[in-house]
Amino acid sequence: MTARLRVLVLNGPNLNMLGKREPEIYGAQTLAEIMQHLTQYADSNNVALTHFQSNSEAELISTIHSAFEQVDFIIINPAAFTHTSVALRDALLSVAIPFVEVHLTNIYQREAFRHHSYFSDVAKGVLCGFGANGYKMALDAILADR
Amino acid sequence: MTARLRVLVLNGPNLNMLGKREPEIYGAQTLAEIMQHLTQYADSNNVALTHFQSNSEAELISTIHSAFEQVDFIIINPAAFTHTSVALRDALLSVAIPFVEVHLTNIYQREAFRHHSYFSDVAKGVLCGFGANGYKMALDAILADR
Amino acid sequence: MTARLRVLVLNGPNLNMLGKREPEIYGAQTLAEIMQHLTQYADSNNVALTHFQSNSEAELISTIHSAFEQVDFIIINPAAFTHTSVALRDALLSVAIPFVEVHLTNIYQREAFRHHSYFSDVAKGVLCGFGANGYKMALDAILADR
Amino acid sequence: MTARLRVLVLNGPNLNMLGKREPEIYGAQTLAEIMQHLTQYADSNNVALTHFQSNSEAELISTIHSAFEQVDFIIINPAAFTHTSVALRDALLSVAIPFVEVHLTNIYQREAFRHHSYFSDVAKGVLCGFGANGYKMALDAILADR
Amino acid sequence: MTARLRVLVLNGPNLNMLGKREPEIYGAQTLAEIMQHLTQYADSNNVALTHFQSNSEAELISTIHSAFEQVDFIIINPAAFTHTSVALRDALLSVAIPFVEVHLTNIYQREAFRHHSYFSDVAKGVLCGFGANGYKMALDAILADR
Amino acid sequence: MTARLRVLVLNGPNLNMLGKREPEIYGAQTLAEIMQHLTQYADSNNVALTHFQSNSEAELISTIHSAFEQVDFIIINPAAFTHTSVALRDALLSVAIPFVEVHLTNIYQREAFRHHSYFSDVAKGVLCGFGANGYKMALDAILADR
Amino acid sequence: MTARLRVLVLNGPNLNMLGKREPEIYGAQTLAEIMQHLTQYADSNNVALTHFQSNSEAELISTIHSAFEQVDFIIINPAAFTHTSVALRDALLSVAIPFVEVHLTNIYQREAFRHHSYFSDVAKGVLCGFGANGYKMALDAILADR
Amino acid sequence: MTARLRVLVLNGPNLNMLGKREPEIYGAQTLAEIMQHLTQYADSNNVALTHFQSNSEAELISTIHSAFEQVDFIIINPAAFTHTSVALRDALLSVAIPFVEVHLTNIYQREAFRHHSYFSDVAKGVLCGFGANGYKMALDAILADR
Amino acid sequence: MTARLRVLVLNGPNLNMLGKREPEIYGAQTLAEIMQHLTQYADSNNVALTHFQSNSEAELISTIHSAFEQVDFIIINPAAFTHTSVALRDALLSVAIPFVEVHLTNIYQREAFRHHSYFSDVAKGVLCGFGANGYKMALDAILADR
Amino acid sequence: MTARLRVLVLNGPNLNMLGKREPEIYGAQTLAEIMQHLTQYADSNNVALTHFQSNSEAELISTIHSAFEQVDFIIINPAAFTHTSVALRDALLSVAIPFVEVHLTNIYQREAFRHHSYFSDVAKGVLCGFGANGYKMALDAILADR
Amino acid sequence: MTARLRVLVLNGPNLNMLGKREPEIYGAQTLAEIMQHLTQYADSNNVALTHFQSNSEAELISTIHSAFEQVDFIIINPAAFTHTSVALRDALLSVAIPFVEVHLTNIYQREAFRHHSYFSDVAKGVLCGFGANGYKMALDAILADR
Amino acid sequence: MTARLRVLVLNGPNLNMLGKREPEIYGAQTLAEIMQHLTQYADSNNVALTHFQSNSEAELISTIHSAFEQVDFIIINPAAFTHTSVALRDALLSVAIPFVEVHLTNIYQREAFRHHSYFSDVAKGVLCGFGANGYKMALDAILADR
Repeated sequence: MTARLRVLVLNGPNLNMLGKREPEIYGAQTLAEIMQHLTQYADSNNVALTHFQSNSEAELISTIHSAFEQVDFIIINPAAFTHTSVALRDALLSVAIPFVEVHLTNIYQREAFRHHSYFSDVAKGVLCGFGANGYKMALDAILADR
Repeated sequence: MTARLRVLVLNGPNLNMLGKREPEIYGAQTLAEIMQHLTQYADSNNVALTHFQSNSEAELISTIHSAFEQVDFIIINPAAFTHTSVALRDALLSVAIPFVEVHLTNIYQREAFRHHSYFSDVAKGVLCGFGANGYKMALDAILADR
Repeated sequence: MTARLRVLVLNGPNLNMLGKREPEIYGAQTLAEIMQHLTQYADSNNVALTHFQSNSEAELISTIHSAFEQVDFIIINPAAFTHTSVALRDALLSVAIPFVEVHLTNIYQREAFRHHSYFSDVAKGVLCGFGANGYKMALDAILADR
Repeated sequence: MTARLRVLVLNGPNLNMLGKREPEIYGAQTLAEIMQHLTQYADSNNVALTHFQSNSEAELISTIHSAFEQVDFIIINPAAFTHTSVALRDALLSVAIPFVEVHLTNIYQREAFRHHSYFSDVAKGVLCGFGANGYKMALDAILADR
Repeated sequence: MTARLRVLVLNGPNLNMLGKREPEIYGAQTLAEIMQHLTQYADSNNVALTHFQSNSEAELISTIHSAFEQVDFIIINPAAFTHTSVALRDALLSVAIPFVEVHLTNIYQREAFRHHSYFSDVAKGVLCGFGANGYKMALDAILADR
Repeated sequence: MTARLRVLVLNGPNLNMLGKREPEIYGAQTLAEIMQHLTQYADSNNVALTHFQSNSEAELISTIHSAFEQVDFIIINPAAFTHTSVALRDALLSVAIPFVEVHLTNIYQREAFRHHSYFSDVAKGVLCGFGANGYKMALDAILADR
Repeated sequence: MTARLRVLVLNGPNLNMLGKREPEIYGAQTLAEIMQHLTQYADSNNVALTHFQSNSEAELISTIHSAFEQVDFIIINPAAFTHTSVALRDALLSVAIPFVEVHLTNIYQREAFRHHSYFSDVAKGVLCGFGANGYKMALDAILADR
Repeated sequence: MTARLRVLVLNGPNLNMLGKREPEIYGAQTLAEIMQHLTQYADSNNVALTHFQSNSEAELISTIHSAFEQVDFIIINPAAFTHTSVALRDALLSVAIPFVEVHLTNIYQREAFRHHSYFSDVAKGVLCGFGANGYKMALDAILADR
Repeated sequence: MTARLRVLVLNGPNLNMLGKREPEIYGAQTLAEIMQHLTQYADSNNVALTHFQSNSEAELISTIHSAFEQVDFIIINPAAFTHTSVALRDALLSVAIPFVEVHLTNIYQREAFRHHSYFSDVAKGVLCGFGANGYKMALDAILADR
Repeated sequence: MTARLRVLVLNGPNLNMLGKREPEIYGAQTLAEIMQHLTQYADSNNVALTHFQSNSEAELISTIHSAFEQVDFIIINPAAFTHTSVALRDALLSVAIPFVEVHLTNIYQREAFRHHSYFSDVAKGVLCGFGANGYKMALDAILADR
Repeated sequence: MTARLRVLVLNGPNLNMLGKREPEIYGAQTLAEIMQHLTQYADSNNVALTHFQSNSEAELISTIHSAFEQVDFIIINPAAFTHTSVALRDALLSVAIPFVEVHLTNIYQREAFRHHSYFSDVAKGVLCGFGANGYKMALDAILADR
Repeated sequence: MTARLRVLVLNGPNLNMLGKREPEIYGAQTLAEIMQHLTQYADSNNVALTHFQSNSEAELISTIHSAFEQVDFIIINPAAFTHTSVALRDALLSVAIPFVEVHLTNIYQREAFRHHSYFSDVAKGVLCGFGANGYKMALDAILADR
């Protein structure tokens, strides 16, 4: 348990647009900046954090497959795939890596079709509405669980 | 407003097969031919029209992201993604470019699962059942709105 | 086909109030003005256009019956009857005149009960969200189809 | 009971188009002819039969109100109003005249929205799928019940 | 068509109890009496009528199979099987004999589960609420259709 | 505010039959008597009250349109149209006159289809179950609000 | 009937917060003030009015039980319990005291879960959307009914 | 912002049983121990934390009312009330104190009736599945937001 | 009332397999043994108990018909027919013999389709989850009711 | 097993009103009388029976918590809480004491919202429709199970 | 495993009509012929195959009971019972013989009520749309599994 | 028909993980091994079999498009796309190549969202629950059909 924990952070479609529009709503930080801070925080907690964002369901699935036996925990913000991708759910199940589901916004304040997630019932835990801080909270949860 | 209007036309999965089978149903025109005519019509109306078709949700999303601040209007025929892709909806919302939703066939005469669209409630307008002419109608609507 | 095309435009309940209230939302044009412009456009395209608005389902049905074998195409904005009138649907079916369904506003951005239409699955095509321009687009679609 | 029975036959919207189109489907008889035959049959059975067809819900309601204490039985084919008119149902209840519900076609072989009737649960009996003969069957049922 | 018409009347479960209880509701006639009158009426109209009642779905199915090419029309009161027996529906379809569905009571005034029938959409016509007279009405309808 | 308040009372289909049947249930008062008393009460409160009853949706709509800028408040008992008329709802919205919805009976004690109203969510207030007194209560509410 | 009428007014959870926040929405009056005015109005109409507010379902039930044979009418604003408390409904039924249901706001303009009430179908009448005046209207209705 | 932050932690029904049964599932910590640790952590972060657990909806509501203008943030684990208490939701809205919703277990892995919360759409953020650590995560989120 | 009570116990499909498989779940007793004990218990309580098990819906119906006026009470475990047989329900209603519904297992802990019974709303009482003892409990209830 | 069995009987809201109203429906016995008889019966069967009734969900929960490791079986009639209280369900689960669910009336003959119970799927057995005798039957079941 | 495998093939209602009507749709083979070929194929694969068809649910259940410990595998085409017979499902479960579910036609291309099966979730495997060949495929699957 | 049959086998997302985890559940065979055996079996039956697996919906669609007029039959295991991909369904329809749908596991024993397939109603046949052998069974079905 003193070994360096390996954590993979996955971000789904359109999250690459973070910080590029409407900073008053989504914050002025880009995803790159958020992930840079998170990586530093991880480093200082003896966690080897890698990050991958894609608008492609297939690329996210492949990244999860590659993580098989190489990663201890996954933090995933599936974005729009939350509500539509059984394939991504199956990918996470196929590698049997525990994961935390994170949403930047409170999905219960949005359209009804965003109230259902294909991930929550197989996640270790779920977090929504805390903005970029949600990733750090997920990481803390993983560390606390160690 | 005398500036050249920039319009992006997006076509979703399987539309590349248009004109290749069952011309008595879908017409003998290929998508290339339809888009060529549309581009000429656009040119003659001072519209810079670009076109992109893909069977990949990820490529369509990337193309929409690239259109950010580069395109004034989008005309989209999401085809099968109409009924399943929240990610494509989110991409359109993320760039805040007004768009018109076009369907070649009358989707209300088809399977029940085709009666719901993830795009209509955020579109400027919706058109269905007019065949290839629907694209030109959408362009006319954009021009009339200018 | 060089014969003068006969088109009937039907407008349902409350559309006679157009332009009388909230011009910033519905536009400043009255229905009379919209139909006058449409008639001129029709004339210049060799189309004999007649127009009828009524708040009475029965009058609309009678007008459709009278159109039997006298009219080539119908453009109909059923307004509130869109969601409630099976009788109007049956009237259109009884005369077997092809029709285009037009809505001024985007009905998918309004109350849930406005998302269902008794007309769409038997219409040739459906248009919504283009304001008064929608009638002209419908006429263009009919002309293009000729 | 040897008094002459007074029966009112009511026909709803679009039934005035019977026999005018597609005789191979709906039969070559017009509604006038059907009602003429029915009246003769009624006469020969000591029944005073009156008939009223309208495309107007309001006119049908008024006719029902006028029948209050003047009519012993109603035979009604509400046509499209079957599925939408609570007002017509209430009119029948308000005069407390027993009625038989008749449909020319088998409504269960048509669109799902035609499977529900606002009349059946308050009718004495319901008949569907027997074409014009259904009216005579309803009259026979009333006579048998006398 | 001057040949003697062969009609089979089928009655489903519990109808053998008719007339044995609550005569003020269901009438004082037993099923035997009703069928005897019906047979006499059929005879006088050149119809060879046979009758079969069973509480057994299997026996009803077998009777229908035996009717294949031996019977011209079926009149069926499926009673409780109306709402539950796909097998009986399939039996009627397998022999392709046109049939009329009869219910003694108005099923729309009873429990909600009695509002759906597995027979109506494949029946020639449906009759309910006319008591024992319904069988005669069904026979008349068959004769009128000849 | 000392100006004479103009109030329009609208009554929907079949309410003209009030007092003509079953006085033990609906009361012995006719609609004319109820409205006469209400008008007197209005007069004594400096309210100019006009009344209109119709079985015709179209006539009710036209009356509402005519009230545009001529009436300060509407009291409406839509009767059966409560559950079916989007057109009447739209008419009230089109003139933007605040209205109170009144039902003589408690609609929640009746058939399930009477539990939904197309008017309640756009009404100022809703009243049901108080019989003829409901109209006076609605008027008092309007006066209290002045 | 010249005896002094005994009326109990019950207010459910959170109504004790009235007038303490957002006076522009809920009015500046506290519940105490509203009830003081109502008591004075009751007194002047020969009504003995008592009032009880509680955030506790159990206390409201006990108060209703205590009212058994001691109170002639109940006016209840169940607030949030409207949508969730079968126990409160049963308490009212157990003492068989007629009651009027009052809501300050128009519950049909709020969240969907507020559209259903466990009280309406057993209430004498229902009132919503009239603010604090609703209590007085309910009292007037009770007096008119006497 | 250097002022001491006032945070109220609320725990709903049955949480007082934590640690008393099945330590292998719910952990060996009692609620008292969890709250003691949380208070220490709060103290060291300049947060004045108070805690209240109750099996009574009414007591929880009263505690929330008392917090009006006395507390800056609420952390609430509504337990079973999550799925049934509109009154508790209304209490939180009535005092307008921002709150975080916490669940010890992953509610999406339990009975279907636990998948809906009356709190999530009005919460600042939602956390589930992290056990007792969830309270600390909520507090961190509040601190990060300061 | 001192007359010997006649009770019929009916057992539906597959109950003849009791005790033949998985004794650790369903108990080691066969249905014959259970019924033998029940008969002895009935005898000692002055009850003439008869028992019939069948996998045939028709045989169960016939047995019920035969019980008409011969039996005072029925105890029925309809087994799988609980959820599918309207005919059996109708048979029980046709003889108007009061009955108690018994299930060996707790049907609410099994598949969702086992949560609905066609018998409960017309039964005198319902019992589930008590194993073979349920029959004795039902008999006790009948005796207590005498 | 020869130890004295400890059984707790819990009764939910409004059951304290038993016998006070409508004795022809609910019986003339008060709850106190019913429980007195039950206690005597328990005594004579070597059962230490305690009883608690409350209209307060919180008090019932506390009583259940107090029963932890002090009681062998619970007999509960949750009354109105049957359909609404997840908290009570959770309380029973938290102490892991087996329980029998009892309803005096046949809940399937009442309003649809009474057909669902939050207790049945976690109960040992369920009993309804046997009146006060149901408690004794539940006790017998517990004794038989010993 | 070199022992002769015992397989029972069960066919449900109406399958005895196979090959007797509409050979262009269902094929010209009778069920007897299909089973004869299947038996030969089984013989050549060291399988003792027995076959039973019935229109009687009870007979099919009895046949399944008789197979208890006498048969290794069941191949069942429940035909119409697929969608309605919980009793047949329970029979298969009661004998714990693994079974394969076969449908001649593609049930997903037929009426909606044929899309649900009471057998699939407890079957070893499911096959549909392969005509008579489906039985052989099922047998191959059983052999491959050996 | 003696020409070599061309068959394309398509496997959807995550099937590349077969055999890599939990061999006791999914079998020890990798997809490569399964496909190698299938290809050998195809060869020996004069079938030219090609295989393609992808986690990308777009790549599967492209492969189907390329098969247009080059392939006689498709065997597809859409895996997670079964339940979500209208685009893949449309691709199969666009090339009009008959296909068999195969699932390794019995999808009816898994989550409810896996019970619906976008492919079954347009497939020639459907197979589930037979593991890797299902592919061979599908091939046999195609050969039998030739």
